Amino acid sequence: MNVILLESHELDAQGRVVLDDRRAIHIVRVLRARPGRRLRVGLLGGALGYGEVLEARHGHVVLQCGFDAGPPPEPPLLDLVVAMPRPKAAGRLLAAAAAFAVRRLTFIGAARVEPSYFDAHLWQPETIRRHLIEGCEQAGWVRLPEVVVEPSFSQGVASALSAVPAGVRKIVGEPGTACRVRHVVRTEEGVLVAIGPDGGWVPKELERLEAQGFQRVGMTGGPLRTDTACLALMALVRDRQEG
Amino acid sequence: MNVILLESHELDAQGRVVLDDRRAIHIVRVLRARPGRRLRVGLLGGALGYGEVLEARHGHVVLQCGFDAGPPPEPPLLDLVVAMPRPKAAGRLLAAAAAFAVRRLTFIGAARVEPSYFDAHLWQPETIRRHLIEGCEQAGWVRLPEVVVEPSFSQGVASALSAVPAGVRKIVGEPGTACRVRHVVRTEEGVLVAIGPDGGWVPKELERLEAQGFQRVGMTGGPLRTDTACLALMALVRDRQEG
Repeated sequence: MNVILLESHELDAQGRVVLDDRRAIHIVRVLRARPGRRLRVGLLGGALGYGEVLEARHGHVVLQCGFDAGPPPEPPLLDLVVAMPRPKAAGRLLAAAAAFAVRRLTFIGAARVEPSYFDAHLWQPETIRRHLIEGCEQAGWVRLPEVVVEPSFSQGVASALSAVPAGVRKIVGEPGTACRVRHVVRTEEGVLVAIGPDGGWVPKELERLEAQGFQRVGMTGGPLRTDTACLALMALVRDRQEG
Repeated sequence: MNVILLESHELDAQGRVVLDDRRAIHIVRVLRARPGRRLRVGLLGGALGYGEVLEARHGHVVLQCGFDAGPPPEPPLLDLVVAMPRPKAAGRLLAAAAAFAVRRLTFIGAARVEPSYFDAHLWQPETIRRHLIEGCEQAGWVRLPEVVVEPSFSQGVASALSAVPAGVRKIVGEPGTACRVRHVVRTEEGVLVAIGPDGGWVPKELERLEAQGFQRVGMTGGPLRTDTACLALMALVRDRQEG
């Protein structure tokens, strides 16, 4: 945890918060924080600041918070539209997307997506939220990505497209393509990335994405699993957006 | 599976192979291959080619192989030295490193590595091998990375350094560093990447790495988990090595 995430309703009028959940356990066991130590805290969707430890014992931590640092700067837009991966990979991907400050993550169906992946236990709102918060806590980020699950390929793509402003760069990962992220994404540019299933897009899906303005990009090396490809493309896009 | 990996002793004198393991199941169930279809095959550590399906039924596949394509081109050297992550993350990392055609992966101890991670069941040679093969199969790559596990930080770093030629670029991931992979890695350059534990390196470890020629590099955004950071850095290094 590089930030302890709090919700505004957890704070009392004096900026004090009592924690008795996994955050308290982490503060005591992993951070070994004692009274007097200042920890980095963030308000979910809001400002960063510090929480001074007033009490810390097993399962009970009291912090006195101050949000002096303001909200962290918003990076350029990065949205993902991803062919639904296996549930375990999807959980990890949620955390990673939050860590990369993705704004919106749309999981969609595709010809090579196993339909049962959409039934999985993972898609309980509280499970999604847990993965997202874990990613934010790791990266010190405070805003949870919006997550949309849409089993239809066409409706999922339409939904992802409707959520981005006109002029956003749209790229689709396709192994074997010579064009690279560095050839198409410009500094500060907003980007929507489409990533296919482990077995790849079928030709019709690729054609439909291209007809809607997605440019194919590849990476050195062979095809990657969906979650690995997402991570690699997020890293490459964030690097290009930066300069 | 983007390549069916075979070992040379599995082939008979006529280039025929009988499969009855998970490869056979994959060929029948996932690829739905029928007699006459040609599949991409690779000899572990050797050449790529095609295997024509002669028989395919549940748990029994016969392929007639020809290795016309030669060995795949060797990418520039990429070695990793990684503070041992949680066992599940380590397994995924093995597969991803194989997919990125990493040559050698050294897992080391560090102040913030839980020592019990070194005892895990994962470190059975056959388990390591299974993860590596899975990564190669996904990426269509044929060479398994060498994996070294060394619980001592100093000895692990020394081992990783002794395995690379002089003049290899050495970088260490450290969140908050302004220097980027794109600022230091040149086209075709061999690279050794050091990645710290989830909680980060302690200052003494960073100093020792720097004293041994590692340059600090950061990425946009906050600190990532060890396995996520590895994936991101592998993608960025492979992209820079390419041009």
